[in-house]
Amino acid sequence: MTTRKYNFNPGPATLPFESLQEAQKELLDYHGAGMSILEISHRSKEFEAILAETKSLMRKIMGIPDTYEILFLGGGASLQFTMVPMNFLTKDKKADYIITGSWSKKAHKEAKLFGQANVAATTEVDGKFRRIPKQSELKLDPGAEYVHLTSNNTIFGTQFQTFPNIGTKPLFADMSSDILSRRVDVTKFGMIYAGAQKNLGPAGVTVIILRKDLVSKIGANIPTLLDYRTHIEKDSLYNTPPVFPIYIMKLVLKWVDKQGGVDAVEKINNQKAEILYGSIDKYKDFYRSTVDTDSRSKMNVTFRLPSEELEKEFIDKGAANNFHGLKGHRSVGGIRVSMYNALPLEGIQKLTEFMKKFKESH
Amino acid sequence: MTTRKYNFNPGPATLPFESLQEAQKELLDYHGAGMSILEISHRSKEFEAILAETKSLMRKIMGIPDTYEILFLGGGASLQFTMVPMNFLTKDKKADYIITGSWSKKAHKEAKLFGQANVAATTEVDGKFRRIPKQSELKLDPGAEYVHLTSNNTIFGTQFQTFPNIGTKPLFADMSSDILSRRVDVTKFGMIYAGAQKNLGPAGVTVIILRKDLVSKIGANIPTLLDYRTHIEKDSLYNTPPVFPIYIMKLVLKWVDKQGGVDAVEKINNQKAEILYGSIDKYKDFYRSTVDTDSRSKMNVTFRLPSEELEKEFIDKGAANNFHGLKGHRSVGGIRVSMYNALPLEGIQKLTEFMKKFKESH
Repeated sequence: MTTRKYNFNPGPATLPFESLQEAQKELLDYHGAGMSILEISHRSKEFEAILAETKSLMRKIMGIPDTYEILFLGGGASLQFTMVPMNFLTKDKKADYIITGSWSKKAHKEAKLFGQANVAATTEVDGKFRRIPKQSELKLDPGAEYVHLTSNNTIFGTQFQTFPNIGTKPLFADMSSDILSRRVDVTKFGMIYAGAQKNLGPAGVTVIILRKDLVSKIGANIPTLLDYRTHIEKDSLYNTPPVFPIYIMKLVLKWVDKQGGVDAVEKINNQKAEILYGSIDKYKDFYRSTVDTDSRSKMNVTFRLPSEELEKEFIDKGAANNFHGLKGHRSVGGIRVSMYNALPLEGIQKLTEFMKKFKESH
Repeated sequence: MTTRKYNFNPGPATLPFESLQEAQKELLDYHGAGMSILEISHRSKEFEAILAETKSLMRKIMGIPDTYEILFLGGGASLQFTMVPMNFLTKDKKADYIITGSWSKKAHKEAKLFGQANVAATTEVDGKFRRIPKQSELKLDPGAEYVHLTSNNTIFGTQFQTFPNIGTKPLFADMSSDILSRRVDVTKFGMIYAGAQKNLGPAGVTVIILRKDLVSKIGANIPTLLDYRTHIEKDSLYNTPPVFPIYIMKLVLKWVDKQGGVDAVEKINNQKAEILYGSIDKYKDFYRSTVDTDSRSKMNVTFRLPSEELEKEFIDKGAANNFHGLKGHRSVGGIRVSMYNALPLEGIQKLTEFMKKFKESH
């Protein structure tokens, strides 16, 4: 086997190696069923148990009360950009969108098809975002059905450090890229949704956590598969769910639980951030952060080098040193270090050693 | 390892064992990438190659001309029940739906939300379907945008033996449960779509084959992720696709190709059908077919026994003899034998021996 790389990809991303090993071990015969998990019916007792365990691990790890539904759907978080307004907006209704990057812009664009989607705040300057808006910048509409935000911005490297106070209106958050990375008070949210392919598992499944009292607010004439009620009524089994991605999510959640849950994982994420931002700050004339200090993401760290040539060299030398996926998103360039839960602390320690050497040799 | 079962599940269903073995072998390190396929970026050269190969194998095996797009989307075939009319119908437009079972009924129900969805034919009697309509029964609307049908009915065990002549209008077919099981002239269709979890791979990905000239007929103001044009423009990479299910599909298509393609597979499917329907016909007082002879499915064979008690005994004794998943769909009862491409001929030979013994002992 090739040496396992430090995988700094923004998602799909690195997963716990022991979860992968477990999946490999039981791939041909799932728990003595005489068939692979890839062949097992979504209506089998085996998959029912997987679904129940995945859900109960989500509840336990995130502290999700019984007043919230948990759904596992296909289509990606991008489909939620449509499903959210399709369920909760109509032409005569309004919603507030806080724009902090590409994903929230996309979510806002979809909402405009269904109702009045206000921009409650945007931190865009010349097509770029380097910060999260302050509470005082939010222009909230008292008549809004919900307020939508993206908790972490993979492309621009910013993250809500605390969540805004929006009064009694439901807060809807796309947490695709930082779910399970830190303790979050779920009861502050009306809905949380997340594509799995960062902290939860592989691509192909999206988790929706929806406060039960909001179900009565869902409108009429929504296509069956895009109506949250369909999936609530059938416990995510209305149609065939993405069985294998859910199964891997179960293994990843078991790993998180074994680490000591979200608090233990958060502690390591804080250490990783301290080490990496520490290096950036120490060599700030060479590694230039693209993000305001009070908006720094602990999941995706973005920075520039003095020139594009140096950036290319950094990425190439990094790759030669087993550091994979350091290239920034094509729309912004530069360097991006994505360090989700399963990226070991050691990976960041070694990367910062490499950064020091690289800086000193230039 | 437990003895591998003969898996007669209707989907998710049995897959080629050698594809599973290949997946297992390379699960921790994909082709020397130093990471698992579950961790690989959808924008990596590795996944680009997988996507290209999957597509080119689809083209080769099914004989799909360049005048057709091929897309790989999440959300299941049920999402296509919505996407099809969302893209091609509006309140002032019409479409014809041929109703032959539960799935076509569901597709028709969704279409009614978007435009005038006619019932061009239905073979429903007392909530059940035992046949495919004849050409002469079709009431086609000359103004219809398309005609929609379900090529094979997993629940009721019927299948279009040949496809109706509908003139110059585009024929849209949900082929989820018989795609790749027999030679089909793709050029007779405007669109073919199929959830993977029967003949193509695991649950979590849907293939769409769309005639290119129809793209110009797609309407306005469609949510981005539900607009076929979005995925055509970005070659199924607008958002993160279900990477792993597509990868497994590639392995399954490689297996089909190695068998000799769709013609070779069809030959075996014909043999399986001949053997199983042969047994049913031979013992027709005991095993009562629920389907008219000229509408029999070669993928899902449904029949009843003289009593529900005997059916239960048949299913239980079958399970004890390594025959898994013989129970009919909960909405119709009885027995269902699903025998997709990867179900070995030997499985049907052994099952019919079991049927003979079971009959003789009762």
